[in-house]
Amino acid sequence: MCGIFAYLNYNVDRERKYILQVLFNGLRRLEYRGYDSAGIAIDASDFTSTPPLVFRQEGNIESLVKSVYKDVSKIELNLEESFRTHAGIAHTRWATHGEPAPRNSHPQTSGPANEFMVVHNGVITNYEVLKATLILHGFTFTSETDTEVIPKLAKFVYDNANEEGDQVVTFNQVVLEVMRHLEGAYALIFKSLHYPNELIACKRGSPLLLGVKELAENKENGSAFEENKFLSKDGKPKELFLSSDANAVVEHTKKVLVIEDGEVVHLKDGGVSILKYENDMGELVASLSRASSVRRALSVLEMEVEQINKGHYEHYMQKEIHEQPESLTTTMRGRLIRRGSSKSKSVLLGGLKDHLKTIRRSRRIVFIGCGTSYNAALTARPILEELSGIPVTMEIASDLLDREGPIYREDTAVFVSQSGETADTLLALQYALDNGALCVGITNTVGSAIARNTHCGVHINAGAEIGVASTKAYTSQIVVMAMLALAIGGDTISNQARREAIVDGLHELPNKVREVLELDQEMKDLANLLIAEQSLLVFGRGYNYATALEGALKVKEVALMHSEGILAGEMKHGPLALVDENLPIVVIATRDVCFSKQQSVIQQLHARRGRLIVMCSEGDAASVCPSESCRVIEVPQVQDCLQPVINIVPLQLLAYHLTVLRGFNVDQPRNLAKSVTTQ
Amino acid sequence: MCGIFAYLNYNVDRERKYILQVLFNGLRRLEYRGYDSAGIAIDASDFTSTPPLVFRQEGNIESLVKSVYKDVSKIELNLEESFRTHAGIAHTRWATHGEPAPRNSHPQTSGPANEFMVVHNGVITNYEVLKATLILHGFTFTSETDTEVIPKLAKFVYDNANEEGDQVVTFNQVVLEVMRHLEGAYALIFKSLHYPNELIACKRGSPLLLGVKELAENKENGSAFEENKFLSKDGKPKELFLSSDANAVVEHTKKVLVIEDGEVVHLKDGGVSILKYENDMGELVASLSRASSVRRALSVLEMEVEQINKGHYEHYMQKEIHEQPESLTTTMRGRLIRRGSSKSKSVLLGGLKDHLKTIRRSRRIVFIGCGTSYNAALTARPILEELSGIPVTMEIASDLLDREGPIYREDTAVFVSQSGETADTLLALQYALDNGALCVGITNTVGSAIARNTHCGVHINAGAEIGVASTKAYTSQIVVMAMLALAIGGDTISNQARREAIVDGLHELPNKVREVLELDQEMKDLANLLIAEQSLLVFGRGYNYATALEGALKVKEVALMHSEGILAGEMKHGPLALVDENLPIVVIATRDVCFSKQQSVIQQLHARRGRLIVMCSEGDAASVCPSESCRVIEVPQVQDCLQPVINIVPLQLLAYHLTVLRGFNVDQPRNLAKSVTTQ
Repeated sequence: MCGIFAYLNYNVDRERKYILQVLFNGLRRLEYRGYDSAGIAIDASDFTSTPPLVFRQEGNIESLVKSVYKDVSKIELNLEESFRTHAGIAHTRWATHGEPAPRNSHPQTSGPANEFMVVHNGVITNYEVLKATLILHGFTFTSETDTEVIPKLAKFVYDNANEEGDQVVTFNQVVLEVMRHLEGAYALIFKSLHYPNELIACKRGSPLLLGVKELAENKENGSAFEENKFLSKDGKPKELFLSSDANAVVEHTKKVLVIEDGEVVHLKDGGVSILKYENDMGELVASLSRASSVRRALSVLEMEVEQINKGHYEHYMQKEIHEQPESLTTTMRGRLIRRGSSKSKSVLLGGLKDHLKTIRRSRRIVFIGCGTSYNAALTARPILEELSGIPVTMEIASDLLDREGPIYREDTAVFVSQSGETADTLLALQYALDNGALCVGITNTVGSAIARNTHCGVHINAGAEIGVASTKAYTSQIVVMAMLALAIGGDTISNQARREAIVDGLHELPNKVREVLELDQEMKDLANLLIAEQSLLVFGRGYNYATALEGALKVKEVALMHSEGILAGEMKHGPLALVDENLPIVVIATRDVCFSKQQSVIQQLHARRGRLIVMCSEGDAASVCPSESCRVIEVPQVQDCLQPVINIVPLQLLAYHLTVLRGFNVDQPRNLAKSVTTQ
Repeated sequence: MCGIFAYLNYNVDRERKYILQVLFNGLRRLEYRGYDSAGIAIDASDFTSTPPLVFRQEGNIESLVKSVYKDVSKIELNLEESFRTHAGIAHTRWATHGEPAPRNSHPQTSGPANEFMVVHNGVITNYEVLKATLILHGFTFTSETDTEVIPKLAKFVYDNANEEGDQVVTFNQVVLEVMRHLEGAYALIFKSLHYPNELIACKRGSPLLLGVKELAENKENGSAFEENKFLSKDGKPKELFLSSDANAVVEHTKKVLVIEDGEVVHLKDGGVSILKYENDMGELVASLSRASSVRRALSVLEMEVEQINKGHYEHYMQKEIHEQPESLTTTMRGRLIRRGSSKSKSVLLGGLKDHLKTIRRSRRIVFIGCGTSYNAALTARPILEELSGIPVTMEIASDLLDREGPIYREDTAVFVSQSGETADTLLALQYALDNGALCVGITNTVGSAIARNTHCGVHINAGAEIGVASTKAYTSQIVVMAMLALAIGGDTISNQARREAIVDGLHELPNKVREVLELDQEMKDLANLLIAEQSLLVFGRGYNYATALEGALKVKEVALMHSEGILAGEMKHGPLALVDENLPIVVIATRDVCFSKQQSVIQQLHARRGRLIVMCSEGDAASVCPSESCRVIEVPQVQDCLQPVINIVPLQLLAYHLTVLRGFNVDQPRNLAKSVTTQ
């Protein structure tokens, strides 16, 4: 949901050409967060009186790049001009307010003179009130965005302060006053004509981090790193980066600071100062004095640039589907205990072990997530119920918030989110914390808001996921949720055999996924058959109810086909009406306790002349296929509760190939963005 | 799910023409239960050695009627031939095993001589084993049905008994032995060449009732009725009816006996004898001696023939949509307490009041249902949670069974089913009873399995619903569930104002529904615009999440359009990808706490050029409609928790008109049947 990026070079010469390149590359890394329009702001010259230049364009990053170079040559801007210090900002957009168009792209500005420019990720919920007020004060709005109020409000604050004769108003003071009026969620970067070579970043709700690259680093110290130094204005040359996530920073530096809610980060004269703004929710009378200076330490990214490159694959989604054997191995590394046949097999989840007793005493376990993460939780519900006997309630995060459903101290709430920043899940977390529940986080992003704000949790360690449609994070989430079930279920005698079979099953899982990936060509052939279809139904039940939902979601997200996942048991209560000889229907009927019920479903669909595609366990083709016209996908059989990891893979491949064959961009599905950080 | 019917006239002359008419009319009343094929069996002559005649036809009842009269004239059967006593059976089918075709229609028979004929509603789960065994014994099967094993098994049992020289084997003994081998759910009627003028009915799981019309009734006694007499073989003329439900019986008699699971009802010589067969689940060694004779009393149907006629409407669905002001009034009759403004307003649900204390102490309330009934329960979840503070878990009945999810003594399980016979819901009820939960039933059918087997409950009193797509039962279910929430919530001071507002809102509801029904023409116009569409999305949230699901389900069921109900909060997590300028999208955005969130959803859909149809509260058109191209449906505003009753009505009308305009039979949606009595 929008990516924001900034690049500030201090005391080191950089040509305009280079600065543009850094900004564009930053946007390319963030493009998966939104790609319907983009923009940048750079300085026109070293002279502080010349307004900075703003370039904005509809479409993806490459459209912006083209249009910038076109404009640059039109206005005869010197690309070789060098800046000793320069602050540039950039934005890639996922439209929420106002259609994709240059006027609605960011940076949004205070007016033609670009006195204040802002890039924004999030939603300002009270923008209509602010807009009305600013219009009364003579401002003219040119966009339909919520963001435009921010730079205009900054100018209003700045002008007022100056009218009062207070010439010493600082950039910080302006931004703090602006923040005081904003409601909603945001990560913001400010650039201003009045404060050249400075940047201010602040956030509430949406993610933001600072990367620091010191160019005069003492080589003898190796990678050792004195954490306080980066704050000081020592005059040493350095490059500073602000970004919505680590992907855009890691190629420059691994030294980062994850900015926290309420912090205002001021980059000036090679130094970084941080004010913490204690904003009481809903209280508008907060004063500037509430902001106090804080010291923070840098941390080191555990991420390699290779992770965020496509390698020999054509698309990120394709790469991430095919790297699932490896990502699952990483997810399980050090967590499976298999001391041989004579000793007990179990799992070890370090982040949870101090809380297991409390969790086992819970009245309920509530699984909370959105989209794919919700589906991953759903796969784990049966096994957790079986092993623990504790009722598991499923909650879509937004629905829990809409209803303000009951959450109590006796509940354990488990929050699942790949990014750890999903807005709805994060708000639900706050709600559950307020109600006293024990909160567990399952995320892929170390240092994310959900990782930080839960009482305990497990990282899925699937590696960076760039494809907007989640694939490898999904299977890693399932595996973590299964391990969670084993951990909560505990070591009772009665479930020992079951538990050990699951541990063995987990161990073998990466190889089984490797096997199922061999269906790639077969799924491409199937995709070719379905290329012109408008609709697709996916039926599943039991452990694979979630597989049906997730498979259909994948096809919907990237192939733009109206696919729907349906609980097979509900078939006769409505969906069967849609069945005829044209509509393609996937039925998941791998071996488990529901197998005979699914055979009956297949019988009934066949009786209605349904166009069947049946997914079954290896060797079952004959017993599931009622006629020659039925197509079969045979997959390796694993432990029932782990089968969803296997079964989703062919559907991921199907969604992928369908999309490519239909000519859509699989890594940039229409209208969607990675990690939904607005409500 | 299949309708079965039988007519036996005893000691009263009836021409073959008349007998056929009674059988056909019976099927017409049951047609909503299934209509892809049908069949009847009648006697060829009074002589017991001539095999009975079996007529079967693909298609609906009228196809059968036509083909029977054609065949009758071909074989020169005398329609005027009179029978003093005659037993005829009939069946209308909803295909589960084997496509609709004469060979798969019922009556299924033991072979060309029609020694045993059976009509069956339900599914025999072990038919494959039985079939294999019978084939080994020389039987030849001609259908793909599960049912065919039953008459063949009857012949096998009969032949074996006779070979052993046991000439006195009775019809009862044959059927009891057959039942011993059957697994699954069924209601069966047997007719046999060997037992002329006798019928045997038995059931397990599927519904069946007996109607008794005594023709020599003493007029002086008026409607008084000696209950034991019907059992005796007094030689008095009478007509007996067997039927899947009361609709096919009420025009003949209101005196009925609801046959219970395990009962074997034998009609012979004008008498009715009932054996109760105690079948231990899963135990195959049960012997005939387990069956013991029972005495049962007739009850009187509270149902008028008018209820099951269309009146001046063209379709049952249309009639039932438009009679909602009346059905809701009936639902609430005597249950609202409004003693004026000074006294406390509340509800009285007689069937629940002894259990309210127990329910209030529950750890969880679990709502269990399928299809539309599940959606009705979902509408009530927020208000029950709000008023009671008890967590409500939603369970689709089949999913609970697939998972064998945890249900405990501390739980209250609420079962919602219009028919009270829905197979999955019934099995879930058994499961919850086995686990010790307090079980509450919400049904429309007095005497139904769910009404009988729950600890307590509430009848929705919506009147007979014939339309396969549930409409008036849905709104009555919502109202009962809201009253249930008020009853469980109790009379605390803190919720007094809220409670009274809801009681007042309930009181006004029928009139508000009358208002919203005035949108009929408007919805017809809208249907005209959407007539050629392949897909439709419906977005709702909060109280109207269920409205989105149910509205989409209606369109799916009858208009055969791929419509999908989506939680608006999940829009950004996938479904938004489908949005373009072509796909029609209904957004439900009536006033409640979620209104501003829905406004934001509309903004975002508009930013993606979505083709919007917005349902809003009266007077809100301007504030929800982002452009002129957006279509608005304005509905009266009522209490938030009752708003789903209002909001579903335009969508019911839309589904109705879409179906009629698209040229489909709205009362007989493709592939579907009323009350799904098989798993």
